[in-house]
Amino acid sequence: MLSESEIIRLFTRSDPPNVVLGVGDDAALIRPETGMELAISTDMLVSGQHFSAGADPFKLGHKALAVNLSDMAAMGANPRWATLALALPETVVRTNKKWLEAFANGFFELARSHQVALIGGDITRGPLTICVQIIGEIAKGKALRRSGAKRGDDIWISGQLGDAALAILHEQQHIKLEPSELAKCLTALNLPVARVELGQRLIGLVHSAIDISDGLLADLGHILECSKVAAIIEMKEINCSAVLEKYLPQSQAINCLLAGGDDYELCFTAPKAKRGKIKALSQETGISLTRIGRIDTGEGLVVLDTTGNAITLETTGYDHFRAT
Amino acid sequence: MLSESEIIRLFTRSDPPNVVLGVGDDAALIRPETGMELAISTDMLVSGQHFSAGADPFKLGHKALAVNLSDMAAMGANPRWATLALALPETVVRTNKKWLEAFANGFFELARSHQVALIGGDITRGPLTICVQIIGEIAKGKALRRSGAKRGDDIWISGQLGDAALAILHEQQHIKLEPSELAKCLTALNLPVARVELGQRLIGLVHSAIDISDGLLADLGHILECSKVAAIIEMKEINCSAVLEKYLPQSQAINCLLAGGDDYELCFTAPKAKRGKIKALSQETGISLTRIGRIDTGEGLVVLDTTGNAITLETTGYDHFRAT
Repeated sequence: MLSESEIIRLFTRSDPPNVVLGVGDDAALIRPETGMELAISTDMLVSGQHFSAGADPFKLGHKALAVNLSDMAAMGANPRWATLALALPETVVRTNKKWLEAFANGFFELARSHQVALIGGDITRGPLTICVQIIGEIAKGKALRRSGAKRGDDIWISGQLGDAALAILHEQQHIKLEPSELAKCLTALNLPVARVELGQRLIGLVHSAIDISDGLLADLGHILECSKVAAIIEMKEINCSAVLEKYLPQSQAINCLLAGGDDYELCFTAPKAKRGKIKALSQETGISLTRIGRIDTGEGLVVLDTTGNAITLETTGYDHFRAT
Repeated sequence: MLSESEIIRLFTRSDPPNVVLGVGDDAALIRPETGMELAISTDMLVSGQHFSAGADPFKLGHKALAVNLSDMAAMGANPRWATLALALPETVVRTNKKWLEAFANGFFELARSHQVALIGGDITRGPLTICVQIIGEIAKGKALRRSGAKRGDDIWISGQLGDAALAILHEQQHIKLEPSELAKCLTALNLPVARVELGQRLIGLVHSAIDISDGLLADLGHILECSKVAAIIEMKEINCSAVLEKYLPQSQAINCLLAGGDDYELCFTAPKAKRGKIKALSQETGISLTRIGRIDTGEGLVVLDTTGNAITLETTGYDHFRAT
């Protein structure tokens, strides 16, 4: 059986220079740069809710950090420090050092690529639960918020939506994807890429931003609510992947795109005058950025189908407590 | 059934002025004061491990924050911001708004008394799990660490140890306390007071500090390990409460005092020259501060019984994964 200190050692790696005191005291110490604000967010992943009990531990370590990085991306912040609290079942602690090593490797591989330091945490027994908290830096007053959307703004999204939702439909045996399709969709679900660099590059270009982890409708809905504006989006502008078209009838495909969740792309609004710069940014970063609609006065969200008619939507997004 | 946004509203109160952006965006924004370091810590409490399923929600809200405040106390930091991630069982969400209100009230009552702002969090379904992360401020280079103990230092503890352990022994029906005794011990267990002010007042007086949440032996052991020193402590110096003496034979009482856990007092080491100032601090704050031993060169911890003979100890403290 692993002792607590053996487990802690698995999560103690050499710290980047931006840490005054890392893992191993009552608290960690950091020294933020002068003139910066700190962006702080936390996400909890629970076995049976966010992942299955048999989930690959490397991917779980990656995703636990990635979903938090995505929050930093949505603020335009530079993620720098993280803490990790873990509840581990008896079986993992007693017999499965490999599980913990793989989890730590998944976490640290992604942390290293973003120069994020794990500075502290907690480990206890319990049903497998992962709670990461992340701290990022951003210049004073520059953060991208949900509340800045203005009438006339274009609505943009990054990347392609729906792949993660397709992977879930496959896992639930509603559809059966080909192996190559499945691989792509599972990567979107289990090894998501947070748009960290993109978020920082959007500072100065956009009026509002959010990440699309709960589905486009729900998350764009947050922008509308916080900004007290309305929006129209056009389905014909949203890239529908060939896989999505192949397996789902149109109404379900729309649902997948608009309310699938787990996409970790960014949705943002920007004045028309920034179209050129945003397109240039897309080319420079290699990340597709698609204009899907516009902000209007009033309230509410209208979705137009490919023929320009308003769609009646069955669902507006993901509520973590909605009966399923 | 409560929706996610209704639950979030229960945890959204007006923020103190030290918050740039609180609950309700992808991340919160704070602006630490220039010249300060940040101390960061996190603790996860799991139903069935740290509390029973029927635990009083108000006390649970209090304790979830208090254990984190205790980490700030041990660093000498001023706690300022917290995040809260909650996994909630279906039953709580579906039928028990009162549970959530009481939990929030317990959390916020303590937060307010320390001027700590809840700036963000996450809520999901799952087995009841509470993860708080806390951020405090401390002047550059002033934090109390585990690693500074020096040969000749006195070893001090605050308050009285063992009451929380007695409450657990009562709950496990190993002993049967009188109602008034039980009330006192349950308060120590369920409504612990973190030594936040004391921790800050110890800056400049002590060489090392830690909180005694895992039991004196284990936590003093961390100081010895990090400082590469040895220690001798004398049982005759440690206040043994009348209740402890009444119910437990001497060997068990010693165990309760040295390895009980859940005490949330501070253990610190300080040069002899500071004895006067530490006693004055005790009088000023009304917190008993007791000198229980001294730091020596070498390694290891010797405990002397009341007649001055070394005790052979059965246990050295709390390992969250030790078979129980």
